[in-house]
Amino acid sequence: MYDLMVVGGGPAALAAAFYAQSKRLNAAIIYDELGGKTTWQHNRINDEEVNDLPGNEIVEQLIKRVSQPDAHLAHIHDRANEIIPTDKGFAVTTERHGRIYSRAVIIATGANPKRLDVPGVQHLLGQGLGYSLTTFAHQVSGQRVAVIGATPRTFRGIAEMLGTAQHIYLITPYASLPESSITLALHRSAQLEVLTNAKVRDILGFNSAKCVVIERGEEIKQLQVDRVFVDLGLQPNTRFVQELGITDPDGFVIVDEFNATSIRGLYGAGDVTTSIFGEQVLIAIGDGVRAAVSAYEYILTEQLHEVAA
Amino acid sequence: MYDLMVVGGGPAALAAAFYAQSKRLNAAIIYDELGGKTTWQHNRINDEEVNDLPGNEIVEQLIKRVSQPDAHLAHIHDRANEIIPTDKGFAVTTERHGRIYSRAVIIATGANPKRLDVPGVQHLLGQGLGYSLTTFAHQVSGQRVAVIGATPRTFRGIAEMLGTAQHIYLITPYASLPESSITLALHRSAQLEVLTNAKVRDILGFNSAKCVVIERGEEIKQLQVDRVFVDLGLQPNTRFVQELGITDPDGFVIVDEFNATSIRGLYGAGDVTTSIFGEQVLIAIGDGVRAAVSAYEYILTEQLHEVAA
Repeated sequence: MYDLMVVGGGPAALAAAFYAQSKRLNAAIIYDELGGKTTWQHNRINDEEVNDLPGNEIVEQLIKRVSQPDAHLAHIHDRANEIIPTDKGFAVTTERHGRIYSRAVIIATGANPKRLDVPGVQHLLGQGLGYSLTTFAHQVSGQRVAVIGATPRTFRGIAEMLGTAQHIYLITPYASLPESSITLALHRSAQLEVLTNAKVRDILGFNSAKCVVIERGEEIKQLQVDRVFVDLGLQPNTRFVQELGITDPDGFVIVDEFNATSIRGLYGAGDVTTSIFGEQVLIAIGDGVRAAVSAYEYILTEQLHEVAA
Repeated sequence: MYDLMVVGGGPAALAAAFYAQSKRLNAAIIYDELGGKTTWQHNRINDEEVNDLPGNEIVEQLIKRVSQPDAHLAHIHDRANEIIPTDKGFAVTTERHGRIYSRAVIIATGANPKRLDVPGVQHLLGQGLGYSLTTFAHQVSGQRVAVIGATPRTFRGIAEMLGTAQHIYLITPYASLPESSITLALHRSAQLEVLTNAKVRDILGFNSAKCVVIERGEEIKQLQVDRVFVDLGLQPNTRFVQELGITDPDGFVIVDEFNATSIRGLYGAGDVTTSIFGEQVLIAIGDGVRAAVSAYEYILTEQLHEVAA
């Protein structure tokens, strides 16, 4: 039985595993691939536009440290299918390694951007069409921009672009935007055109996204643009824990300020959780350490009780 | 007027400034010294015992990026004496630069370990006597250890050492330990001797801490030990904001899950806040970014309202 099992291979998982390693916990990390979304290139619109955030470098460092041969940290290349609470901790069922037992578990399986499923997306991705709104927002000077989505990050991204973009279409399937300080401010801008009750039918262009085809009620409309951002929110990778009652209606793991779930010994960190700050690598790393410190205190306490019993 | 002013030079402040820089905010960072506590060596007991956490490397990277010449980020080598809310943001009064105005402010001035003020401390610091409990706890195998303090970190550190230390004295001025899952477990250990209502009079030793002199009521007692850890908690650097009503009784800045204080536009991050996870560099960095993202959204919203007004 392990003391701690970290499920996932992204920044939060790596940070948690690294902390476990520094504490010489009898720990395991189970993942498909180390690095998580930081190795996933599709977010980029053009290569030269990549932001110089040190997040990726830090993730590389964490991968290096966590991958060093270490008797205390087992690497399990597999996928967790289910987490089952037992009387002494948890059984993690895997595809190829059977059941693995651990006293505490940290869920850090990440989340993926929800995809826009229209024909044009596939061949225009990276060519004026991207899923990363805030990172590249300052490069839309004088452009006509379409933004598809309505997450808090969407609104921040639009607010960023309003100073420089020529015109912005905000396309949302909903009847209205959620009321918040920032959406109230957005509504006052003449550059922004909010298209509610709108469904994206296709994105057109040759080598560059140039037109968004939307459907509003009976009407089909073509919007001429220079750039398209898709920001439909994240889909957390939590199907394997959906029976545990620790997720919100959208599937995100609910954690408190200790990164603990409602089940003792079970923690969550990174994009998979109800953090409103998705996709900031440095925040995910900090939360991974926070979850690991909490798990560590839990493990120490359980060990003491066992020795005394 | 700046959009954002970061007060402090430690990991949380650097991370916030770095985020501001990546967003090209008109920002300033005001500090005595970049790097904060990570450059402060007194935590160490011996040089060879330094943990290989990547936190310090990351801080060095952040210093490098934040220090690059950049028209958007001003470096102000000074000390903030007061933060005064104004109708358009805040006035930060400084020692040598007068009043500096900013729309939003992040307080990240850190905290320092509370010192044990007895004669022996000064010449034995780093010689079997230290302020960093959890980092070196695994190196007390077979030793007699005195721990002075009663913070959550103290209990975690003791729980860590119980497996290997020969005997542990826990010395606290209080009549009892706070009741928690971990202290209940600690009470059951035969290796741990809790000395309540105890006051440390001195620490004795030549080149190495060997004896703790304590006073309990009428009695003076000498405890023979191999190592002494002092963990009296942190003293936050918040005197300059004590009039604002944003601190708890111990002086820590109270922040919510967005790292926002109760004053709009004013944020806190790192050891200066009511985080229970003090002194984890990676957590401080994550929280610094979180505060900066929150401040950024606030600034964007205010700018939109101003343009529209």
